[in-house]
Amino acid sequence: MAADAVAAAMAASSLCDDLEPATVRTCIRDVLAAGAARAGERVVVGGWVRTGREQGKGTFAFLELSDGSCVSTLQVIVDAAVHPLARLTATGTSVLVEGEIKEPPEGTKQNVELKVSRVLEVGEVDAAAYPLPKGKVKLTLEKLRDVIHLRSRTNTIGAVARIRHQLAYATHRFFEENRFLYVHTPIITTSDCEGAGEMFQVTTLFSQAEKTEKELKEHPAPSESEIEAAKVIVKEKGDAVAQLKAAKASKQDISAAVDVLNRAKEHVSKLEDRSKLKPGIPCRDDGSIAFENDFFKRQAFLTVSGQLQVETYACALSSVYTFGPTFRAENSHTSRHLAEFWMVEPEIAFANLQDDMNCAEKYVQYLCKWLLDHCREDMEFMVKNYDKSAIERLELVSSTPFVRISYTKAVELLKNVTGKKFDNKVEWGIDLASEHERYLTEDIFKKPVIVYNYPKGIKAFYMRLNDDDKTVAAMDVLVPKVGELVGGSQREERLDVLKQRILDAGLPLEPYEWYLDLRRFGSPPDLLEKQKRRSYPGRPSRSDVVPAACSSSACSTPGCVPAALPLPSPVRAWRAATPAGSGGERSGGGVAAAGEAESWVAMAEPSAPVGREGREACPSSGSGIWDLRSEEAEGST
Amino acid sequence: MAADAVAAAMAASSLCDDLEPATVRTCIRDVLAAGAARAGERVVVGGWVRTGREQGKGTFAFLELSDGSCVSTLQVIVDAAVHPLARLTATGTSVLVEGEIKEPPEGTKQNVELKVSRVLEVGEVDAAAYPLPKGKVKLTLEKLRDVIHLRSRTNTIGAVARIRHQLAYATHRFFEENRFLYVHTPIITTSDCEGAGEMFQVTTLFSQAEKTEKELKEHPAPSESEIEAAKVIVKEKGDAVAQLKAAKASKQDISAAVDVLNRAKEHVSKLEDRSKLKPGIPCRDDGSIAFENDFFKRQAFLTVSGQLQVETYACALSSVYTFGPTFRAENSHTSRHLAEFWMVEPEIAFANLQDDMNCAEKYVQYLCKWLLDHCREDMEFMVKNYDKSAIERLELVSSTPFVRISYTKAVELLKNVTGKKFDNKVEWGIDLASEHERYLTEDIFKKPVIVYNYPKGIKAFYMRLNDDDKTVAAMDVLVPKVGELVGGSQREERLDVLKQRILDAGLPLEPYEWYLDLRRFGSPPDLLEKQKRRSYPGRPSRSDVVPAACSSSACSTPGCVPAALPLPSPVRAWRAATPAGSGGERSGGGVAAAGEAESWVAMAEPSAPVGREGREACPSSGSGIWDLRSEEAEGST
Repeated sequence: MAADAVAAAMAASSLCDDLEPATVRTCIRDVLAAGAARAGERVVVGGWVRTGREQGKGTFAFLELSDGSCVSTLQVIVDAAVHPLARLTATGTSVLVEGEIKEPPEGTKQNVELKVSRVLEVGEVDAAAYPLPKGKVKLTLEKLRDVIHLRSRTNTIGAVARIRHQLAYATHRFFEENRFLYVHTPIITTSDCEGAGEMFQVTTLFSQAEKTEKELKEHPAPSESEIEAAKVIVKEKGDAVAQLKAAKASKQDISAAVDVLNRAKEHVSKLEDRSKLKPGIPCRDDGSIAFENDFFKRQAFLTVSGQLQVETYACALSSVYTFGPTFRAENSHTSRHLAEFWMVEPEIAFANLQDDMNCAEKYVQYLCKWLLDHCREDMEFMVKNYDKSAIERLELVSSTPFVRISYTKAVELLKNVTGKKFDNKVEWGIDLASEHERYLTEDIFKKPVIVYNYPKGIKAFYMRLNDDDKTVAAMDVLVPKVGELVGGSQREERLDVLKQRILDAGLPLEPYEWYLDLRRFGSPPDLLEKQKRRSYPGRPSRSDVVPAACSSSACSTPGCVPAALPLPSPVRAWRAATPAGSGGERSGGGVAAAGEAESWVAMAEPSAPVGREGREACPSSGSGIWDLRSEEAEGST
Repeated sequence: MAADAVAAAMAASSLCDDLEPATVRTCIRDVLAAGAARAGERVVVGGWVRTGREQGKGTFAFLELSDGSCVSTLQVIVDAAVHPLARLTATGTSVLVEGEIKEPPEGTKQNVELKVSRVLEVGEVDAAAYPLPKGKVKLTLEKLRDVIHLRSRTNTIGAVARIRHQLAYATHRFFEENRFLYVHTPIITTSDCEGAGEMFQVTTLFSQAEKTEKELKEHPAPSESEIEAAKVIVKEKGDAVAQLKAAKASKQDISAAVDVLNRAKEHVSKLEDRSKLKPGIPCRDDGSIAFENDFFKRQAFLTVSGQLQVETYACALSSVYTFGPTFRAENSHTSRHLAEFWMVEPEIAFANLQDDMNCAEKYVQYLCKWLLDHCREDMEFMVKNYDKSAIERLELVSSTPFVRISYTKAVELLKNVTGKKFDNKVEWGIDLASEHERYLTEDIFKKPVIVYNYPKGIKAFYMRLNDDDKTVAAMDVLVPKVGELVGGSQREERLDVLKQRILDAGLPLEPYEWYLDLRRFGSPPDLLEKQKRRSYPGRPSRSDVVPAACSSSACSTPGCVPAALPLPSPVRAWRAATPAGSGGERSGGGVAAAGEAESWVAMAEPSAPVGREGREACPSSGSGIWDLRSEEAEGST
């Protein structure tokens, strides 16, 4: 049959009549949002029963149904004639039902309810074994971590997932609207590009060693004598060929003998290869590990930042950003850091420090506004349960221009403070501690503050050296109740200065040659060298808008409750993202990747723990994928 | 000074008068899009000179300027009086200029041009050293890989970056519009959740060993005799205390002697601790590696799929998706696989196989339509330079309902084919090879085809077993010139069947207990067991919309040119994404993560290479961050 004929013959075959028709499910958020406007409409709704109770002496049941699309549940009414009620009412039961949207009797709370005509699906639950409590009983967040695979069924974790989703989505919208291109920089890398922190190594040496070991157990390596014996056979077969040739045997016979000889030779070389197999990690003669045998033929690591890589794109495409996972193998001094977290790293060409600050301010405001517009119900849930002033702060941050002061002025201000005694002494040159940052933004200005022009000694080599030769064109965004939320800088565009700064940082030049090339070839430097102070736009400039969009999901996440408030870790994530957090300690250091903000974010990340407490944690059993999690360090403090 | 007073005093300090004002740059895409409508307007434009030439005996110069916002360049005219022309015209020079938008003389190509009044910034280039060629000279893609940090300045890599960005953005829009929540599943994990492939291990054992070694070099471990000597001192100090007590010495004297004793004891315990320090990787008594000393106190790996984890969210939030990096440490049989690639994994509750197919079809069509609407110029560039039918195929895929046939019918069709001889014999039970998939979609139907209900033997354990006990509710989306683009399945919701499938796959149950919990507690099973065949909605169901959105950027990417066409790897990435690819070999296997499609995508990923060729590649010098890249395997074929 030719292809065309086949196609014709099959024309009627695409009906999938052997498959069940698709489900057209309406999400509960949409049913509730429309309210009475959709009364009378028939819909199919699916979800998990939060609470169920039989009423009217068992003639019908009320089910409070959640499908995770919003905080609110839909009240569902099922008559006993429609389905055995006892199989529906247990908390955790999943149901797919068809019914009619109705306005409830006057005086009841619901805006609409669903009168069920057909129960399409039921996923029952052994109520005695179900780990989540019934109704409004609250589990501690610690307890929830023991059922990490079910905890997204709670209001708190559900709300955090929705907030995090919206922040991620708003991030992509913000950058798209502002003509940025999204770039995926490598996760596996060979360089610790800015000396930003301890790295995880990526390897297959252990599994290779295991395979070799297994292989050697099944087929032990040949002994010297085995090899010798095989060589003797080669000798014999060689002699045989020689004899045949000497005897002028037929070509066929000689050729057959040569074949035999070659097979014998091959056997020897296989044995010799196998004799080189050694169990364990391969080492060089000097005893060091032979990484040239690893997957990438060298040492490879998980990235600590895609910043320098993404700059290569900025030097061609003008405005770019990354948004992906980042890793630190640090024995953190706080329990708030995770080994794995997501961050956003924009990079802009033809921009100066003011452009950078404008971008960061605009971005943070955009996210806060977005949450107010798109997550109102979830935010109200947070206000009610975790943080009374969360919405107020979102409103403040989204509508107030940020104060901008130089580091030098900020230090002057802090030195003159009389009403408060700081634990860390304030003097020019220090890396501002969290208490200082919080005092600036919460007490002095009572609004977000951008501090700029930091001492060069506490910042990274790629930040542009100012004319005072003491400060660099760096900036941090400080926000009430969070502290540092964003860090960024204008890049050093002068080749000679940049080289010196790399050397001053104690780093070798060679691994940065590619980065220096960006300065050699068409990096837009100052037009007028004399006006440097006034005129150094043109370099790529970054705001490590670290936390925000990256921070909100994390239902799978361990993390730590902050010292001040018993908040769930995911909430703190969102807090990092939305200037609505509380407390926290700076991680310090010259890394632009916002210490404090980062720690807030990190905490809410889905995967691995970090920090002393986290690392000592004993993972729970029975949850293989989630088990790299930290137990609560600060507990219910 | 109190905080309020300080704030008042600082009110005027937020002007940043010590900083240069922000740059308000207009992107070239916007200037060109508006065309004559903006003629007469003054704008600031920045970019890199593609070609520059002096004209009118050196009285002015034309610069073709690109800022990466679109394929087209803006023609910029600079008079010699405004700036020394020789410093502007070299290819690669970056400039930031202010000027007036003008309509060009009649009969010229440009729709508008920019007459420069001020050159604000120039980043010069040593034209002799600049590695990219001038003007329209084409570098091979192989050659471009030697200057991976500059290659995004080329038209091809720029176009791919923009296409990839748009695909990623469209992915987030599609899922947001359809009420999906974006979830970040862990990158570092301890389980190979579906046996999907070889994993990279994540470790700090090597760096720990290195540190210990260094430490021991600086401060060698104490010898036995040192420890013995310290113990003798403890004995002496103990005796001294005893003597003082016997002599009824003063409390003060005794206390002082006890302090000395304690310090001596501490010293011994420190020495003993240090004596346990051993160089090298820590081992257990049986010689195996002591992973309990590793960062996570056990073995940890890079994820091969977040699918099972994200299902925990779907069983609470109904519709979710992941979009992040994934890793395979495979000695791939093709050179098209990378160690690191991004993929999209949606997971839907209350959905059957038809819902899954509908979602995949809608998503692929959405992306194709999006590219036609938002990347027309870039696609036209691709049509002109790499793939004549790319736009036609986007139009076909975005507007044609996909054919849907069962695997069994597909095999029948292929068996009856007379016009073509396949390399791989067709019979029921085989995993369709790329040649079969391509024939179905390109020759028989000439449009996208969804094949469903595959033999259980070639698919993963979590796919729902059909009533025939021979097939599972899996589906693959096949697209002309690409082959498999998406793979998905309906999940097995029956606890007993799922357990048996795990065991049949040779996997242990214990690591999946958390996954089985999702079936124990409110997994929506069939209402009517007798109607299973017709009625099994309610389980989370996934489409591994693997490639699409994830695939297009990759300017940083190595990868391989396809066998059929000399395409740059990033183009192939986009091809995976946009059903516009050519050729390719199936990776096979029961993993839903679309073999072929994946390989297309993978190729375009920014980071690490994989595949035999890739791994043997010698990284270029001077590009530390990009160096995990593969050299061309298939070269210019």
